[in-house]
Amino acid sequence: MTLPELIFSSPEIHALQRRYREVREYSLALAAPLSDEDQCIQSMAETSPTKWHLAHTTWFFETLLLQCHAQGYQVFNPRFEYLFNSYYDALGPRHPRSQRGLLTRPARQEVHAYRRYVDHAVLSLMSQADTKLWADIEPIITLGLQHEQQHQELILTDMLHALSCNPLQPAYRASNTQLPTQAMQTNPMHWIELAGGAVDIGHDNSDGSFGFDNEGPRHKVLLRPYAISDRLVTCGDYAQFVAANGYLRADPWLSDGWAIVQAQGWRHPAYWLPPNDPRLFHLGEAAHQWHVFGLDGLQPLDPNAPVSQLSFYEAAAYAQWVGARLPTEFEWEAAFAAPGISQMTGHVWQWTRSSYDPYPGFKPLAGVASEYNGKFMVGQLVLRGGSAATPAGHTRSTYRNFFPPSARWQLSGLRLARDL
Amino acid sequence: MTLPELIFSSPEIHALQRRYREVREYSLALAAPLSDEDQCIQSMAETSPTKWHLAHTTWFFETLLLQCHAQGYQVFNPRFEYLFNSYYDALGPRHPRSQRGLLTRPARQEVHAYRRYVDHAVLSLMSQADTKLWADIEPIITLGLQHEQQHQELILTDMLHALSCNPLQPAYRASNTQLPTQAMQTNPMHWIELAGGAVDIGHDNSDGSFGFDNEGPRHKVLLRPYAISDRLVTCGDYAQFVAANGYLRADPWLSDGWAIVQAQGWRHPAYWLPPNDPRLFHLGEAAHQWHVFGLDGLQPLDPNAPVSQLSFYEAAAYAQWVGARLPTEFEWEAAFAAPGISQMTGHVWQWTRSSYDPYPGFKPLAGVASEYNGKFMVGQLVLRGGSAATPAGHTRSTYRNFFPPSARWQLSGLRLARDL
Amino acid sequence: MTLPELIFSSPEIHALQRRYREVREYSLALAAPLSDEDQCIQSMAETSPTKWHLAHTTWFFETLLLQCHAQGYQVFNPRFEYLFNSYYDALGPRHPRSQRGLLTRPARQEVHAYRRYVDHAVLSLMSQADTKLWADIEPIITLGLQHEQQHQELILTDMLHALSCNPLQPAYRASNTQLPTQAMQTNPMHWIELAGGAVDIGHDNSDGSFGFDNEGPRHKVLLRPYAISDRLVTCGDYAQFVAANGYLRADPWLSDGWAIVQAQGWRHPAYWLPPNDPRLFHLGEAAHQWHVFGLDGLQPLDPNAPVSQLSFYEAAAYAQWVGARLPTEFEWEAAFAAPGISQMTGHVWQWTRSSYDPYPGFKPLAGVASEYNGKFMVGQLVLRGGSAATPAGHTRSTYRNFFPPSARWQLSGLRLARDL
Amino acid sequence: MTLPELIFSSPEIHALQRRYREVREYSLALAAPLSDEDQCIQSMAETSPTKWHLAHTTWFFETLLLQCHAQGYQVFNPRFEYLFNSYYDALGPRHPRSQRGLLTRPARQEVHAYRRYVDHAVLSLMSQADTKLWADIEPIITLGLQHEQQHQELILTDMLHALSCNPLQPAYRASNTQLPTQAMQTNPMHWIELAGGAVDIGHDNSDGSFGFDNEGPRHKVLLRPYAISDRLVTCGDYAQFVAANGYLRADPWLSDGWAIVQAQGWRHPAYWLPPNDPRLFHLGEAAHQWHVFGLDGLQPLDPNAPVSQLSFYEAAAYAQWVGARLPTEFEWEAAFAAPGISQMTGHVWQWTRSSYDPYPGFKPLAGVASEYNGKFMVGQLVLRGGSAATPAGHTRSTYRNFFPPSARWQLSGLRLARDL
Repeated sequence: MTLPELIFSSPEIHALQRRYREVREYSLALAAPLSDEDQCIQSMAETSPTKWHLAHTTWFFETLLLQCHAQGYQVFNPRFEYLFNSYYDALGPRHPRSQRGLLTRPARQEVHAYRRYVDHAVLSLMSQADTKLWADIEPIITLGLQHEQQHQELILTDMLHALSCNPLQPAYRASNTQLPTQAMQTNPMHWIELAGGAVDIGHDNSDGSFGFDNEGPRHKVLLRPYAISDRLVTCGDYAQFVAANGYLRADPWLSDGWAIVQAQGWRHPAYWLPPNDPRLFHLGEAAHQWHVFGLDGLQPLDPNAPVSQLSFYEAAAYAQWVGARLPTEFEWEAAFAAPGISQMTGHVWQWTRSSYDPYPGFKPLAGVASEYNGKFMVGQLVLRGGSAATPAGHTRSTYRNFFPPSARWQLSGLRLARDL
Repeated sequence: MTLPELIFSSPEIHALQRRYREVREYSLALAAPLSDEDQCIQSMAETSPTKWHLAHTTWFFETLLLQCHAQGYQVFNPRFEYLFNSYYDALGPRHPRSQRGLLTRPARQEVHAYRRYVDHAVLSLMSQADTKLWADIEPIITLGLQHEQQHQELILTDMLHALSCNPLQPAYRASNTQLPTQAMQTNPMHWIELAGGAVDIGHDNSDGSFGFDNEGPRHKVLLRPYAISDRLVTCGDYAQFVAANGYLRADPWLSDGWAIVQAQGWRHPAYWLPPNDPRLFHLGEAAHQWHVFGLDGLQPLDPNAPVSQLSFYEAAAYAQWVGARLPTEFEWEAAFAAPGISQMTGHVWQWTRSSYDPYPGFKPLAGVASEYNGKFMVGQLVLRGGSAATPAGHTRSTYRNFFPPSARWQLSGLRLARDL
Repeated sequence: MTLPELIFSSPEIHALQRRYREVREYSLALAAPLSDEDQCIQSMAETSPTKWHLAHTTWFFETLLLQCHAQGYQVFNPRFEYLFNSYYDALGPRHPRSQRGLLTRPARQEVHAYRRYVDHAVLSLMSQADTKLWADIEPIITLGLQHEQQHQELILTDMLHALSCNPLQPAYRASNTQLPTQAMQTNPMHWIELAGGAVDIGHDNSDGSFGFDNEGPRHKVLLRPYAISDRLVTCGDYAQFVAANGYLRADPWLSDGWAIVQAQGWRHPAYWLPPNDPRLFHLGEAAHQWHVFGLDGLQPLDPNAPVSQLSFYEAAAYAQWVGARLPTEFEWEAAFAAPGISQMTGHVWQWTRSSYDPYPGFKPLAGVASEYNGKFMVGQLVLRGGSAATPAGHTRSTYRNFFPPSARWQLSGLRLARDL
Repeated sequence: MTLPELIFSSPEIHALQRRYREVREYSLALAAPLSDEDQCIQSMAETSPTKWHLAHTTWFFETLLLQCHAQGYQVFNPRFEYLFNSYYDALGPRHPRSQRGLLTRPARQEVHAYRRYVDHAVLSLMSQADTKLWADIEPIITLGLQHEQQHQELILTDMLHALSCNPLQPAYRASNTQLPTQAMQTNPMHWIELAGGAVDIGHDNSDGSFGFDNEGPRHKVLLRPYAISDRLVTCGDYAQFVAANGYLRADPWLSDGWAIVQAQGWRHPAYWLPPNDPRLFHLGEAAHQWHVFGLDGLQPLDPNAPVSQLSFYEAAAYAQWVGARLPTEFEWEAAFAAPGISQMTGHVWQWTRSSYDPYPGFKPLAGVASEYNGKFMVGQLVLRGGSAATPAGHTRSTYRNFFPPSARWQLSGLRLARDL
């Protein structure tokens, strides 16, 4: 029997260690502007506290990596397994999702200590990996970092929702750090015409690049000729729909959408505040204008910014109202690099007219991670692209984000499509 | 000016008049075994009383046909417009769906009078049609009859649900009128292998045959090679899943499915009664066996009968548990006439692994009927085939039935598929 | 051992047999104007179908009388014990209250047969009673008849609620059979001043007269001097409260009352229809007036009629708004025969400012009947008097009716009181 | 015109200033063991965050005292009026009660600054008061301090509820600071017999002593002879009810109580943890015993401690089960100083068999404070005594505490009574 090859000083390991540190530090950087109180609250069952995100992403490494592959590893606190499991049924019972905001303990400091403890163990494990261990742990670490990046976006969107529930409308950060969504000017929308035909869809992992299980296998889809808009729908565009009583007439809406519009009294996008809303009174004269609540607090509605925080129902109704439709996820992907197209990533996720179904030949990941994506494949719609809150390097043309059609707290907007 | 061509004695008109009478009479025949009390109740928001079905299908002809095309037509009762509109927002406000069971008035007899009044007007209108009018009204009448046939199936499934809520477990009809679902014997399941490739999907209406808007346009879909089971999954098959604690372990279930299993305490199909259920006590010794409630009342579980009244969640969990999956609606359609395949229609609707999305190039019907199918295209799953309760002549290989994934009161079962 | 004295031809027995027949026939008379469909429905969890009332009152005699005291009695149908038990936990499980409307079977005719079967057995039992048996059964029969009279009032109020949910607003009976609540004219209200002091409260059963357990024991209560209004508050009185935005301002309301006003959008009494309500359109010009829905259908609001179908919250808010208050149940009882007082019974039940608590020394009935009144003594308010729907002979000055403060479907109104 | 008499150096003012400081400081002392996260959360709609209590009690002084009586007073932050109004409809709209836990801003430090700002203004106002102003403000300040003391108890009980929702079961404080409820030993219960008759009930404010409006006016009530237990019911007593399947049989329960027992699966008092509850596993061997969660965390059930955190339903069911009953609030008050009686205050509030109705001649406070007590007088039950969490000096024999019958998070227990 020969010893496995030692790869202690491998550049590959160093690179992943560096990336691990960067990703993990970025999570803390996102939480830094927030008080302990901010980091503890949960404003609806679908969101989670910042502190919980920080702990859960750490639990992921501890549970799927260290407990399986780090010999002699002692868990930081055995009771955390119950607290910070998100939805892995194979890993036993867990704290109810809707009660994550009740966890004032462990304190934020203790969660930071938990992160340091696990980070040290992960980095040590990497340093000691031989070829065989590396082959086992590298995919898990990579998955864990991709997972943490997903939660980084949720830290922002969940916190934004929580702050939006506060009548004081506090800002996550000062307004001079503008998001790229606030474009200075918008050109008139143009249609880009595409021929369709048999196109390749999905992630090709033959080159070893990362893609989630739900992005594969790569396969061919037949498309008819279609046109897709060169840019996103803006707040200015969408304001015309609001002004035309779009929320008061049934005809552009899907049936379930119209039901929720009526039941919940929707009159405009969730984070828009109409002129003379009481929450604007402290602004004086400016209270007579539409405002939008965002990470930089209350801002006057910017007609050039992509409309965001739309539900699928609102996106589909707008498209119907202008005589167009949403693209399918296949049309979107086939248009990714079309000449003249813009704003495909980095602004808002874009609702598609595709339900979140498995691709032909879909195979979930092995083991516990099999619960990662596959078990959510019903009742949700696919979003494509990536938003201003998506961490750098976390977008792909094949990336399939998904949310229920009523979700209104993501950076989610739309672009248009039509048949040719 | 020339008069339109008279076609009073056209065989085409006679044929449609005969068909109109047959379909309309069959609705009454389905209601005949039921008391006035039976016909009035509504056992959950998703179902409707028999009497309401009888009135609503009549309202459909009155509103979409007679009011638009029969000169001088006087409505039977103007207040019925509010009562018997189902979901057409373009036609004004309507009685809330969940309160249809409160309509003890109009009495059943009055609804019968309403039917006779409208039937007379429809048949007269047909008799007087010239070529131009015929071109206008024939599609509406045909649509109205297809619509009524859909409600004929619902009369049975909705009534069955209502009767299932009665602790006395009364039968809709005596047990000697067995449904074809009670097969005498079942052969072992075999896989039928199919090559896939580019297949034609959807209804081709170039020959003038009827298909709903959601069945088109006909288009090509690329399929990978796959296998599909030659017969339906039986109660005997499914009972093994129940016996293996299939409802007590999370792993075969989709996340939403597992949540509903736990929240509602599902332990077996909705219409199954486990041994020694109190509702079986009056059966004496037989109470120690599994029973199934159906149109013929309580019957011992027949292992050869196709399993029915499953939700999508249960169908998908069973498929996962046996290491297979549900076919997509395209795979199902492509296998429709495959050699050796059986039970494609006439037994139970078959859940597919396809969300109910629009086909490429989908165009809703014009006018009010545009609300017919398109506005429900989100959050539902496609069922294919046709059941023992589907009226004769109402099935097609391209027919797309759809229900939410939690629906458990239809004659809905499954067949299996797998990748090759 | 001596035989018990035979009392076959006792006038006492004959009198009770006659009364039994009268009470039982009156229940059927109340149901007579209703169709089978009407008699089957249940419009909210708090109400019951007419057919269920007819069966349950019969079950009461079968279960508490015949099964205990009629040797060799065979129950009509053993499965009815489950269906028609109302709330007696000691008698085993029962059909859920909210699902009584699903019982299309047994059919109305079968319930009539059940009544005849039990009636025959009860009358026979009485005929055969000796002194000892009579002493046992007479109190149960009397209780059963009082119980049935309570349900007679509920047959009317529950049916009225069901009919009120029908957009057609059908009448229980033609309008020429006016209730005594439609007084021709109302005099100005006067205060009757009473000295208070130690007054006797509660039913004195030393003379063998009937009173429910909750009416005793008779005891003394100290009252301060007070005034009570000589007549009931009318629709005309109450309309001023509505017109003065009484439902739009918090100050006259109890906290729970104001919460329900806002949550459910109360704007006027439950059975009032404001001018130009769509349900009035078919009345033409008359649609511009206030109407009230009652047993005789839609009628123009009669300002002289006592206001009815008020919740306690509404009654208390009105009293507060006019600078008065509701009387306590003790004040009401002490004023029962005060000179000049009117409308104490026969019009509407009158909300008091007394919670439904046990009297000092309260003892429930023995056996199963102990559940009759005592277990409801929390969270309810006492009403006194008796309404136009209360059967003749069923009112007493000491009678304690009770309902939750939000109940709006009884013939419940108010009179005023104030401190001196 | 003469100047009002200056009373700058009055001992009365100094005394109230000292008391003001003491009460206000005690609120902060109660919050001191808690982290910022702890102070921010709300674990159910009925409770409030510690920080909110600290701010609301301050808002009370600012709104009812300073804004009305301190000339030129500038509010600390005008937006706090919306945030920290509890239920005063006369003072305009307010933040929804169920969303108080979302107020991460203002931060705890800002609330402390708010307290200091208002404290300074209140103390200054007192220093400058002349006779006339003093007559106006002294009652408001006294009311404000009584109000703050009520919230001091809620700070503890609300926080205890929040901590009880955390699977880690953290303690509010270390266990060596035992509450007086943990008595060392309990004597057998004895009955104290009392003659009843006409007793004086309610607060007599002729001597200028403080009592809430709901404690008056003082009046006479007639009582029958009765016996009352000399001590509270203990955990040991109550454990026998639990062991005798008290939560599994309907007969001792009021109807509403039994409904909630079944709907919510109650099996024992809310803060008891049965042997081998997973939350006890970390205790090792001790996990096999009953434990009780309290301010000092998880402790083994002490059979001598008064049972606490009972709902009225549980208290009444226990009393019924032992063949006794709860005392009325009048019996309780009349027994307050009876020879031999113990534990009347300082341990747990004691549920009475009295609904929270107004006393004869009840007059609410004038002005905004009229909403203080009167508008809650329906649907609640009276508790008497005072608990280990009640601030020193805040108990009176006439004090009427009140909660809905289902409330299970107060220090609420019982003593027994019976008729003689």
